[in-house]
Amino acid sequence: MLNNKFINIGVSTALLVGAISTPVFAGSPETDTSVIFNSLLFLLGGFLVMWMAAGFAMLEAGLVRSKNVADICLKNVSLFAVACLMWMLMGYNLMYTGVEAYFGTFFDLWSPDDVSLKEVAGAAGSDPAAYSTGSDFFFQMVFVATTASIVSGTVAERIKIVPFLMFTVVLAGIIYPIQGSWEWGGGWLDQMGFSDFAGSTLVHSTGGWAALVGALILGPRDGKYINGQVRPIPGSSMPLATLGMFILWLGWFGFNGASQLAMGTISDIVDISNVFVNTNMAASGGAVAAFVTTKIMYKKVDLTMVLNGALAGLVSITAEPLTPLPIEATLIGAVGGVLVVFAVPFFDKLKIDDVVGAISVHLVCGIWGTLAVPITNHADDVSFLTQLIGVASIGLFVTYTSAIVWFLLKKTVGIRLSPEDEVRGADISELGMEAYPEFGKGSQKF
Amino acid sequence: MLNNKFINIGVSTALLVGAISTPVFAGSPETDTSVIFNSLLFLLGGFLVMWMAAGFAMLEAGLVRSKNVADICLKNVSLFAVACLMWMLMGYNLMYTGVEAYFGTFFDLWSPDDVSLKEVAGAAGSDPAAYSTGSDFFFQMVFVATTASIVSGTVAERIKIVPFLMFTVVLAGIIYPIQGSWEWGGGWLDQMGFSDFAGSTLVHSTGGWAALVGALILGPRDGKYINGQVRPIPGSSMPLATLGMFILWLGWFGFNGASQLAMGTISDIVDISNVFVNTNMAASGGAVAAFVTTKIMYKKVDLTMVLNGALAGLVSITAEPLTPLPIEATLIGAVGGVLVVFAVPFFDKLKIDDVVGAISVHLVCGIWGTLAVPITNHADDVSFLTQLIGVASIGLFVTYTSAIVWFLLKKTVGIRLSPEDEVRGADISELGMEAYPEFGKGSQKF
Amino acid sequence: MLNNKFINIGVSTALLVGAISTPVFAGSPETDTSVIFNSLLFLLGGFLVMWMAAGFAMLEAGLVRSKNVADICLKNVSLFAVACLMWMLMGYNLMYTGVEAYFGTFFDLWSPDDVSLKEVAGAAGSDPAAYSTGSDFFFQMVFVATTASIVSGTVAERIKIVPFLMFTVVLAGIIYPIQGSWEWGGGWLDQMGFSDFAGSTLVHSTGGWAALVGALILGPRDGKYINGQVRPIPGSSMPLATLGMFILWLGWFGFNGASQLAMGTISDIVDISNVFVNTNMAASGGAVAAFVTTKIMYKKVDLTMVLNGALAGLVSITAEPLTPLPIEATLIGAVGGVLVVFAVPFFDKLKIDDVVGAISVHLVCGIWGTLAVPITNHADDVSFLTQLIGVASIGLFVTYTSAIVWFLLKKTVGIRLSPEDEVRGADISELGMEAYPEFGKGSQKF
Repeated sequence: MLNNKFINIGVSTALLVGAISTPVFAGSPETDTSVIFNSLLFLLGGFLVMWMAAGFAMLEAGLVRSKNVADICLKNVSLFAVACLMWMLMGYNLMYTGVEAYFGTFFDLWSPDDVSLKEVAGAAGSDPAAYSTGSDFFFQMVFVATTASIVSGTVAERIKIVPFLMFTVVLAGIIYPIQGSWEWGGGWLDQMGFSDFAGSTLVHSTGGWAALVGALILGPRDGKYINGQVRPIPGSSMPLATLGMFILWLGWFGFNGASQLAMGTISDIVDISNVFVNTNMAASGGAVAAFVTTKIMYKKVDLTMVLNGALAGLVSITAEPLTPLPIEATLIGAVGGVLVVFAVPFFDKLKIDDVVGAISVHLVCGIWGTLAVPITNHADDVSFLTQLIGVASIGLFVTYTSAIVWFLLKKTVGIRLSPEDEVRGADISELGMEAYPEFGKGSQKF
Repeated sequence: MLNNKFINIGVSTALLVGAISTPVFAGSPETDTSVIFNSLLFLLGGFLVMWMAAGFAMLEAGLVRSKNVADICLKNVSLFAVACLMWMLMGYNLMYTGVEAYFGTFFDLWSPDDVSLKEVAGAAGSDPAAYSTGSDFFFQMVFVATTASIVSGTVAERIKIVPFLMFTVVLAGIIYPIQGSWEWGGGWLDQMGFSDFAGSTLVHSTGGWAALVGALILGPRDGKYINGQVRPIPGSSMPLATLGMFILWLGWFGFNGASQLAMGTISDIVDISNVFVNTNMAASGGAVAAFVTTKIMYKKVDLTMVLNGALAGLVSITAEPLTPLPIEATLIGAVGGVLVVFAVPFFDKLKIDDVVGAISVHLVCGIWGTLAVPITNHADDVSFLTQLIGVASIGLFVTYTSAIVWFLLKKTVGIRLSPEDEVRGADISELGMEAYPEFGKGSQKF
Repeated sequence: MLNNKFINIGVSTALLVGAISTPVFAGSPETDTSVIFNSLLFLLGGFLVMWMAAGFAMLEAGLVRSKNVADICLKNVSLFAVACLMWMLMGYNLMYTGVEAYFGTFFDLWSPDDVSLKEVAGAAGSDPAAYSTGSDFFFQMVFVATTASIVSGTVAERIKIVPFLMFTVVLAGIIYPIQGSWEWGGGWLDQMGFSDFAGSTLVHSTGGWAALVGALILGPRDGKYINGQVRPIPGSSMPLATLGMFILWLGWFGFNGASQLAMGTISDIVDISNVFVNTNMAASGGAVAAFVTTKIMYKKVDLTMVLNGALAGLVSITAEPLTPLPIEATLIGAVGGVLVVFAVPFFDKLKIDDVVGAISVHLVCGIWGTLAVPITNHADDVSFLTQLIGVASIGLFVTYTSAIVWFLLKKTVGIRLSPEDEVRGADISELGMEAYPEFGKGSQKF
């Protein structure tokens, strides 16, 4: 299993912190190509995944009404910043040293003499998987930000920004790293053989569960469900939503590709190449499947469904983008694309109001992708049952912890805009501004 | 000639498929830096070229009227997905094994035991041009998607989406790979000495010819040409068009840079660096030339012309971005920028309605760039005559085959929106939605 | 000091131009990994910094009124092209050969036999910092374009485009390279020990000073300051401004990361990794600090302040992104975020009309970041006094030269739109078009 490599190194990183107290490479012209390649992979993947923050921002800005566009932009910028801060302050050490050893390392990254990010994890020159610890820190940091981004779209148009960011603090600082430590930190799920290459469950389902619980506790938008009817509330800008989808598609090459965790051998670059191919095929399969399905079901093709279909394909392949043939990756993505077309009205039937369809995309397809791993990955310890245990345990954990946090926030600071503020829109009520001050009259029309 | 390297390897890839039946690198820590560098180049170039799909989407979304914006977004997403599927299903084997050997390899990428994308083409350790086959597959896949993207802008605002995608199926699955095999597949044009570094002819002219034929068979938009007058139909969002142009400019570094096909030697990286420089200079030259030309001709500067001028510069340098000095690249791009300013009204005079100017940019400048190769590339076998033969033969082939497909589609499923649907806009008639439901009244104003 | 490496090589590049008259690598399969890594770093960083041009374009398009959006898009495209041309024609040789030797090398890049960009600077195989000269040329070229981009936002909505581009010609061709030569060209500031890793002063303050002087000579927009009151003029599109900020954040990884100037050793990749981490932390710190500050001061959170806060964090860390701990980088960025919240109203109080807040972001935080270098960089020759001398000397030089150019332009061609044209908007008066022809009525409302 590929992730093992990473886990061992992740743990040894923490050990190295104590062992080496000053950077040993400064000024020395020592060259080890695999360390450079591996670290470069994290940096390339990292900046691509960071760019996904813009993708979520544009997707959501396009899918909310114009009276909430500035607010959703502010949320996306702020949650990214907050998630990165929490990762630095707590999450990184919590995820990779484990909960038990956590408190001893809490201040590691704060210490004036800390060099833990200025080292190489693994033995340069002999370990082909060795990498710069700072590059890994950067890559993992933007992953947690992605998880936080998933939530904002679901709970848009009715949540207050400060409690939303408070939830982000807990999600990025505690919930994400604890469940992450079970697998990528070398914990019990990893030892059991659970397989999640780049995070269909650890990132996407986690974000999806947190969003689902948030939507339930927050309740639907005013006027979304009237007399048992679902009222469509169209988004304000289809090209921005399309742009957001393309940004996410692009960023996913970093998300899945760099989750190979090493690029310093021929074997690794061959694998990364296939991850790129399969990621692209799954997105294509998801988009085409959603196109065909909506065309058949509704005669007309729904652009937002096709956008979500592509994203569904991407989420579906994330748990195992390496072992499938391209045709298999296409089909795994296509199933995701079909799932989304049915999941969106399903959640509406349950009166779970998900503004951008994030629960359908990230949670439903995250589960599908994780359960589909054994179809193509025939390693001994990967089984449908193990995958199910991973999905369920992380689902339970995230659901319960999220529910506690959402509930506490609701009972203390309050999480929902007042009905008047919701009608006026969050832009005016929370920011005192308009996203498009010169265009139309969004708040009157809808 | 640089492309030879690629052609030989391309062919040997197919041979390797039979020779090696299981991946040989798994688990072995073998390192060969040039294989990694070469494959990394394809992956970097590939994700940059994939990103161009977003560029075409934004450029076209900005240049159509608001009543057709969601439709053009849907087309751009779908065509990319369809082109990638067709490449996997047919195009790749058709282009690199040649038409004659094609049917034997049709199912190669479908086979449960296929490892053709999990290998290295060329001898790792001795061949400095060896690369992971999967990385090359990915890079070539996004190239064919680019070709398909060129067409959508020209035929926008009046074509139905399903027949448009049917055309994409044939373009990406048959037309593009056959003409591509003549040069990049090591066919007769390559053997004759035709030179097209990154595809001024193979990609841009091919897309341009297909668009030209489409525009002719489809006819102009309702109200574009009235009583011999050309009626300007302004696009709905200049910043989106500008964003699209910038995305394309960025993606072009991958398009041209990775067409060097190798990065594993000093010679290669020196060449790639110069390709980057010349690509940037040609775009700059094209933009400034279009600025100055429109300023002189019309007193006012036309933003869309400057955007197309930059793209014209990029298309112009694509056939030979390596050999020119920066000043030569600037001038080659500048000629492209001037050509576009004259080509756009020229096609309007012929009542060929090209919504975004794609024929002027990709076809006219694709021809110019291809013919300009001998000015700076003094290799023995590159001559103006050979270049002309390449331009003409691919032009004839694409024109004829495209015409047949467009004509068949017209006579069977029909390709054009009804007059009423065209007036209402494709968003309502094809998608049942609006791109900007809260802004203005696009369909009434224009 | 890291920059020394670069300076020496920069100078030797110029020497090599004379020494080697033909490319020596063509056809030879010689491999030197550090040359490839170092050059690749410049190409990666270069395309990310090039992408920042789109970021400035979107940020400014979002923050001006709709009647000036097409104009600001045109300015951003044109200034990038013009800056690149001037860099090729003059700037590169002026910056790296020094003013005294300049005239002898003026035509170097124009000569039919010139191979200065087709070489390797430094001894391949023995010098771990050797790189392809073309890659460095490309990276430096997009830096000067960034400097020019900073100015356009401040002077938006009232300046004529042709004189604006004339100013860009002088800024990119003369002002930037002369002050750049003092530090990155190995001049007196560098020898004194001034430290500016990626250009808080050399790029951002330089752009900021030029913008400040431009704003002073140009005067405020009509109606901005009435009877001692500051009238808020909201921007037309918050999502485009948000997108622009995200693009800049992404591009900054190239801006700061590739300013390490080498990636061919473990020491270098460890350093680059930490530059990435610190760049991200500073942006996060700036965004959160601006969020909290505006929330406390105004009860409501101002999205544009948070966007500028993130950018402020990025500018602040640019002078020294390597030596700080992540927590220190966060705080350095946070100070920048707070500074911007106070600087914007401060300049308004002085009736200096800065449409997008670029002076507050790039000049104020550029100074702050430069002065903060000694806090974490304890190299012998870095002192607060040296930093102050660098800030002041470049400030004086840019202020005086910019003032002369702006003044000459004002007295000759004129720099300001007529009052009627300003009311109608630059889109109609300068371009004869509208950015959003189907939406709203921007020019009437504001």
